[in-house]
Amino acid sequence: VTERKGVVVEAIRRIQPTDTAWRVRAKERLDTLTKPSGSLGRLEEIAARLCAIQETLSPTSSKRRVVVCAADHGVAAERVSAYPADVTAQMVANFVNGGAAINVLAKTADADVWVIDVGVAGPVEVRGTQIPFVSRPVREGTANMTQGPAMSEQEMLCAIMIGLEQADLAADDGVALLALGEMGIANTTAASAITSALTGVEPARVTGRGTGIDDQTLARKTHVIEQALALHSLRADAPFEILQTVGGLEIAALAGLCLGAARQRQAIVTDGFISTAAAMLAVCMCPSVADYLFAAHLSPEPGHAVQLDWLHQRPFLHLDMRLGEGTGAALALNIMGAACAAFTDMATFESAGVNGRR
Amino acid sequence: VTERKGVVVEAIRRIQPTDTAWRVRAKERLDTLTKPSGSLGRLEEIAARLCAIQETLSPTSSKRRVVVCAADHGVAAERVSAYPADVTAQMVANFVNGGAAINVLAKTADADVWVIDVGVAGPVEVRGTQIPFVSRPVREGTANMTQGPAMSEQEMLCAIMIGLEQADLAADDGVALLALGEMGIANTTAASAITSALTGVEPARVTGRGTGIDDQTLARKTHVIEQALALHSLRADAPFEILQTVGGLEIAALAGLCLGAARQRQAIVTDGFISTAAAMLAVCMCPSVADYLFAAHLSPEPGHAVQLDWLHQRPFLHLDMRLGEGTGAALALNIMGAACAAFTDMATFESAGVNGRR
Repeated sequence: VTERKGVVVEAIRRIQPTDTAWRVRAKERLDTLTKPSGSLGRLEEIAARLCAIQETLSPTSSKRRVVVCAADHGVAAERVSAYPADVTAQMVANFVNGGAAINVLAKTADADVWVIDVGVAGPVEVRGTQIPFVSRPVREGTANMTQGPAMSEQEMLCAIMIGLEQADLAADDGVALLALGEMGIANTTAASAITSALTGVEPARVTGRGTGIDDQTLARKTHVIEQALALHSLRADAPFEILQTVGGLEIAALAGLCLGAARQRQAIVTDGFISTAAAMLAVCMCPSVADYLFAAHLSPEPGHAVQLDWLHQRPFLHLDMRLGEGTGAALALNIMGAACAAFTDMATFESAGVNGRR
Repeated sequence: VTERKGVVVEAIRRIQPTDTAWRVRAKERLDTLTKPSGSLGRLEEIAARLCAIQETLSPTSSKRRVVVCAADHGVAAERVSAYPADVTAQMVANFVNGGAAINVLAKTADADVWVIDVGVAGPVEVRGTQIPFVSRPVREGTANMTQGPAMSEQEMLCAIMIGLEQADLAADDGVALLALGEMGIANTTAASAITSALTGVEPARVTGRGTGIDDQTLARKTHVIEQALALHSLRADAPFEILQTVGGLEIAALAGLCLGAARQRQAIVTDGFISTAAAMLAVCMCPSVADYLFAAHLSPEPGHAVQLDWLHQRPFLHLDMRLGEGTGAALALNIMGAACAAFTDMATFESAGVNGRR
């Protein structure tokens, strides 16, 4: 445990905040382009932040990768989901075989998809080999958080390290934009517990219908989260304890991915409720991670808006998406690509011979 | 005039509402795909609407085109803009030479850009020939709407017909998604007047800073719009009169483009405040046009939210963009493409061997 903890602590120590001087320089360039100052709105902010992250005035938005981390959840035994737990392994196979929404949407965003099994219970039946599949189950799903900690400290650190490793691999491949994806039946329950623990907002306000549960199941799910939080009595400033007791293995891997991506100066694009919970944990572990985060979209899951407020993030897209997998994040990659292209490819007032303001 | 009016009336007569049966069939197919029902949110709605527009369960999102209509405005003489009127012609040249934001953003959306001069005052200096440029100025900018009608009925009909013609050309080229773009110094003044006239909302609430005017200019701009509306005493159900008296030539062309695109069963993507004013006029001329409309984004221009409410449209993107040119619409093309790809390319529960709900 001590050795693994050392690796994570060292990764965190190496994360640098971005330098605002790059944003100022980027803004100066943006004001020379043929458009009224600020009129590209948040595209300008995205471009300036990419400049600061990459420390350049020639930012790039390629290449792009969606990392989908998957694991099962012991709390599924409390019947908190509309789907049986088998679906996790089946959907992971679907990702690897290229048939899921994330495969299709990532393709439209010119992004590749990596699928990481961090703790799926049961075997994954893989047919295709086009999609990189990393099989590194730390354990066969977490334990039931209402009975005890979801995982041991050792297991949590292993999962975080898998995420750190993925960020390093992405850096080796020259990835500039890294989108977070996840799969795990019952993982909105873990995400709600994490969100409540980090923000202090009561479980009922951050617990939603996930894949589409009925009123009775929603009431049970809320109660399960209250039970788990009562059992573990967590402090808001203890991200590792929160992650270990009420988190998930894929959430730990995604938190590690955020830390690793920030260390590698990659832009991190959050997706929905689960991946944003992971990003919050990473920010709580290291506040400078926030400099690398971009919120893709707003999910109808009620806790998502609470999370984005806590992160001081405004989502780009309002599409009522609640699938996860990284689907919303994939759509945002094109927006970030457009921001980057506008910054690098537009004519200036001078080069185009266009008059400025009166 | 009578002959031209006949052409426009005939175009309107040929517009069909979409058949909701296609949306039902599309929804049935969506529910077989490997995702919880409805979890792709508005992507599912987009796909279903494209099915209804194209009358198929194999919808396509290509090809894609941004049509940028440009013209000058006599009301610019009232000093309602931060930029001199020369900038219209200069920016049109920038579009045709490929250096503007719309060129860059359309490229990231795999869309071509057509530039239509419907009434730019003064010559357009074109260098490149890569961008199709249609020079059809009806007159050298409109007249000042505070002194009299912005254009004659004949001129308005000519401009509408240019838009109709562009929709036909796009149909010949197999365009499925048509994005509206515009350029014209002072055209937010015309759009505010149109919006106020159609909705009954007072000018002060639908008049904003456009390209970035100061408080004093904003007060003058609001007063100019009040003056023009007082002069013409318009009825909310008289779109042609509103367009002729307080509109613009590029707005007339865009209204015609909406009519023509609906007639040709193309999806129409609105951009910001000016193009949405044109879409409102088209809907007022023929309510079935609404079946073909998609709202790309929400501009900070205060009247834009009023327009989208009036159209019962919810924007996809929240990016504070206020440039026009079709830039926001271009970004939405990728979202619509993603919706279409998810619909056509995802695996089904059966083909992927994934269990459904308990």
